[in-house]
Amino acid sequence: MKFPSPVSVEWIAELISAKLVGEKGYAAGINEIHKVEEGDLVFVDHPKYYQKCLQSAASYIIINSEVEVPKGKALLIHDEPFEAYQQIVRHFRPFHYATSMRGEPVTTGEGTFIFPNVYIGSHVRIGNDCVIHPNVTILDHCEIGNGVIIQSGTVIGSDAFYYNTKKNRETWYKKMESCGRVVIEDHVEIGAGCTIDRGVSGDTVIGRGTKIDNLVQVGHDTVIGRNCLIAAQVGIAGATTIGNGVILWGQVGVSKTLTIGDNAIVYAQSGVPSSLEGGKTYFGSPVEEASEKMRERVWIKRIPELWKKVTGAHS
Amino acid sequence: MKFPSPVSVEWIAELISAKLVGEKGYAAGINEIHKVEEGDLVFVDHPKYYQKCLQSAASYIIINSEVEVPKGKALLIHDEPFEAYQQIVRHFRPFHYATSMRGEPVTTGEGTFIFPNVYIGSHVRIGNDCVIHPNVTILDHCEIGNGVIIQSGTVIGSDAFYYNTKKNRETWYKKMESCGRVVIEDHVEIGAGCTIDRGVSGDTVIGRGTKIDNLVQVGHDTVIGRNCLIAAQVGIAGATTIGNGVILWGQVGVSKTLTIGDNAIVYAQSGVPSSLEGGKTYFGSPVEEASEKMRERVWIKRIPELWKKVTGAHS
Amino acid sequence: MKFPSPVSVEWIAELISAKLVGEKGYAAGINEIHKVEEGDLVFVDHPKYYQKCLQSAASYIIINSEVEVPKGKALLIHDEPFEAYQQIVRHFRPFHYATSMRGEPVTTGEGTFIFPNVYIGSHVRIGNDCVIHPNVTILDHCEIGNGVIIQSGTVIGSDAFYYNTKKNRETWYKKMESCGRVVIEDHVEIGAGCTIDRGVSGDTVIGRGTKIDNLVQVGHDTVIGRNCLIAAQVGIAGATTIGNGVILWGQVGVSKTLTIGDNAIVYAQSGVPSSLEGGKTYFGSPVEEASEKMRERVWIKRIPELWKKVTGAHS
Repeated sequence: MKFPSPVSVEWIAELISAKLVGEKGYAAGINEIHKVEEGDLVFVDHPKYYQKCLQSAASYIIINSEVEVPKGKALLIHDEPFEAYQQIVRHFRPFHYATSMRGEPVTTGEGTFIFPNVYIGSHVRIGNDCVIHPNVTILDHCEIGNGVIIQSGTVIGSDAFYYNTKKNRETWYKKMESCGRVVIEDHVEIGAGCTIDRGVSGDTVIGRGTKIDNLVQVGHDTVIGRNCLIAAQVGIAGATTIGNGVILWGQVGVSKTLTIGDNAIVYAQSGVPSSLEGGKTYFGSPVEEASEKMRERVWIKRIPELWKKVTGAHS
Repeated sequence: MKFPSPVSVEWIAELISAKLVGEKGYAAGINEIHKVEEGDLVFVDHPKYYQKCLQSAASYIIINSEVEVPKGKALLIHDEPFEAYQQIVRHFRPFHYATSMRGEPVTTGEGTFIFPNVYIGSHVRIGNDCVIHPNVTILDHCEIGNGVIIQSGTVIGSDAFYYNTKKNRETWYKKMESCGRVVIEDHVEIGAGCTIDRGVSGDTVIGRGTKIDNLVQVGHDTVIGRNCLIAAQVGIAGATTIGNGVILWGQVGVSKTLTIGDNAIVYAQSGVPSSLEGGKTYFGSPVEEASEKMRERVWIKRIPELWKKVTGAHS
Repeated sequence: MKFPSPVSVEWIAELISAKLVGEKGYAAGINEIHKVEEGDLVFVDHPKYYQKCLQSAASYIIINSEVEVPKGKALLIHDEPFEAYQQIVRHFRPFHYATSMRGEPVTTGEGTFIFPNVYIGSHVRIGNDCVIHPNVTILDHCEIGNGVIIQSGTVIGSDAFYYNTKKNRETWYKKMESCGRVVIEDHVEIGAGCTIDRGVSGDTVIGRGTKIDNLVQVGHDTVIGRNCLIAAQVGIAGATTIGNGVILWGQVGVSKTLTIGDNAIVYAQSGVPSSLEGGKTYFGSPVEEASEKMRERVWIKRIPELWKKVTGAHS
C-alpha cells in the first residue's frame, strides 16, 4: 500500500510509540517483505528474517531488536512489530462501509451499466463500458478498467487468507490486515461466483484482455498477465505471477509465490507446486510436461507385462 | 435461439447489409454450428468449416465467400460473418435490465416462494411450488419448472465462457454473445453457490428430478438428463450431454462436447476427457473404469518387488 | 434437532397417526440414526437397519413393522416412517422467511457490523465483534459466536444434499428435510463464496479459531475442530469429523462420515476416502502418507530402466 502522500517516519514512530534510529525521511508506503520497494516501511519480528529484511529495498524497518542500522535506512524499534504494522494499516485504511449503488441502476464511467443488488464499497473506480451483473460485490479501493464484464455473485477484493501463527489469548492464528487492492485492467471478463482477494500490501492484478470463467479463486497479491484464459474452478494461491497468454484449464490448482511463463498451457485438474517455463504444455498433479506425463501413463500400463517377463506368471 | 416468429431472410440480409443469394424464405432461428436445425441461420468465417456448414441442417448461411449455393438454401454473403451474427443476436436479445422482485416476497406460479435479495431478470418463467432462496440470481429468458428448489448464491443464466480468438485492436479474444437459455425441469434441486451458464445459441438443460449439490459449474449448452446426482464442486464444461441417472461424485471435472451414458457413476475427483459408456463405474484423472484403475494401483505398488526380483537389490 | 422442550410420545403418535407400543415418556429431540442420543426419536424403514436402530441410544423408534419392543423403549408403528419423520420436522421447523437486516447497517451483539445486502433468517444469533460482509446469506437457526468474520457471497445454513432414494410418482429422489443448524464458534473466519450446509438433524460445527479460505464447501453435520486451516476450494462431505489443528490445502476433497485426526496435514488436491490418523502428512488421490506417495513417484519413473534391464531394449 502506498500512502496518499509520503509520511514522515518521525510521525509514524510517534503513532506506534517506537524508538526511531537512523536516517530520518519520508515513507512512501508500507508493505510486507514480498512486495517491498525503496522508500517503503516493512516489519520483521523473527531473527531468522532479520537479514532478509535489513538488506531488502525497504528504507524503514519496524523491528523488535536494536540491531545495527543499515546505511541510509532507519529502524523503528518496537516490541511487537506485527501489531505496529497492523496499527499503521488501520490508520490509513480505517474500517468503514459505503454503498454507492444498491437497488438502482447507476452509471459510473460513460456507458457502464451496474445491475441491481450490486454492492460497491468506498474509493472504488470503475471505467467506461463495463457491465456489472446482479449480486456482485466490489469492495473498497478496487479499480476496474474499461470494457470490463463481471458476472453475478463474484466478489472482488475479499481479504487475503493470510495469518500470523503467533498465538495469543484469543486465537491461534492472527489475521494480517489486507490493505492492498484488486486492479482489473481493460477488457477483462470475470465469470460468475469468482473470488478475487485483494493484496495484503500490494495489488492483485488481472491483466488486460484476460478472460476468467466461473467459480475461480485468485489469491492475494497474485498478478495475472494479459490475454490469459482461466477456465472454471481454477484456484490460484497468493503472490503468484502468471505471464501473458497463459491458459489454465478447468480445476487447475496453482500454489503460492511461483511464476508461470508466457503462453504456458496447463491441462485440466493439474496441480502446479512450483514455477513453470513458458511456451510448454503441462499435465498432472504434480504437473510435468504433458508429453512426459503421457509416456508415464504408457509405462504404468506395461507393468503387468514386465511382471510376466520376469516371473513367467501373470499375477 | 428461435426467433419470436419466423423472419424473412431478405429482412435479415438488409439488417446486416449482406448480399442474398439462393432460395429466399423465413428463418426460424439463429444458432452456432453445434446446435443447428432446419430453418436456422448459421454463420461460418473460415474455409476449413465451409463444407461442414454448407452441408449442415441450416437453411441460411452467413459466409464470407461467394461459394456455390447448396440446393434449397440461401447464402448471406458478408465480409465479417461473426460480426453479422452478433448483430442479429443483439437485435433479438437487446441488452436491458429488469428486476421483478427484490426485497419483497413475491409469488410467481402458485405456491412458489421467492426470498428477499433475489434478482430475477426479464422474460423469466417460474413454475408452481418452487423455493428460490436469498441472494439467487436468475437472468433473462431462463425457465424454471414446478417444484424446483434453488439455494442461496446460485446464478442461473450467466454468459458462456466462449470466445472467438480473432484479435482486433481492443482485445485478443472476442466474446460470443450468449442468446440461449437455461431450462430447469420439474423437481430439480440446485444447491448453494452454483453457476449454470446459458446456452450460446441453444439451451442449457437440467433434466427432471436431477439433484445438484453446492458450488457446481454447468457450462453453456450442456444437457443433463433426468434423476442425476451431481455432488459438490463438480465442473461440467460446455455442450456436453449427460444421460439419465448419472452420478458424479465431488470435484469431478467433465470436459466439453462429450457424452456420458445413462446410469454411469464417476467417483470423486475424476477427470472425464472424452465420452463414457453408460452403466459403468469410473475413476481417475483421466478416468478409466474403476476396477481397472484399482488394479493399476496394485501394480504400481509392486514395482519395488519387481525391481528386487530383477536386480537382487532393494533400491 | 432438540425440541424446544420435551414432547410427549403419545402426542407425537397422535400427530403422525402411529400406533404406540412400549414405554411412554417424553422425547428430547428427533435425529437420523448417525446422530441419535438417549431420549431421541429416530426412524427406520428398512429391515436391514432395524437392529442398528433398535439397539441405538434412541428411546423412541418410528418403524414400519411390529417387532419386539426393546427394554425401556417405545415403538411408533407407522407404514411410512420417512414421511412421519418429515411431518414431525415440519411441525417443529415450519417454513417461513424473515429478514432482519437488508440494506441498512445493523448491529447484533456489541461491536458487530453487518454490511448491506446481507440476508439473515429467523432465530439467528450473532455474537459480539463480528463482521458480516456484503451479500452474505445466513439462514434460519444458525449461531455465530464472537469475533467471527464472514466474507462476501458466503452461504451459512444451506440445506443438506441428502436424499431418500424411494421413488414416488413425482420424483426419483426424495429430499430429507434439514432441521439441524450451523454453529460457528468464536474467532472463526470464513472466506468469500463458501457454502456451509446445516445439519440434517444435528449441527454442522466450525470450531473456535478455525480459518477457512474462499469457495470452500462444508457438508451437513460435519464437525471441524479448533484452529484448523482450510484452504480455498476444499470440499468436505457430510457427517465427517475433523480434529483440532488440521490443515487441508487447496482443492482437497474429503469424503463423508470419516474422521481426520488432530494436526493431520493434507496436501493440495488430495482426495480423502477414509479416516486418517492425526499428526501425519498426506498426499494423493486417494491419499497416502506423503512420504510413501513421493517414493511411489520415484518408483514409477524407474519403470523404463527396469524394462531395459529385463528386455535389453529401451521401448
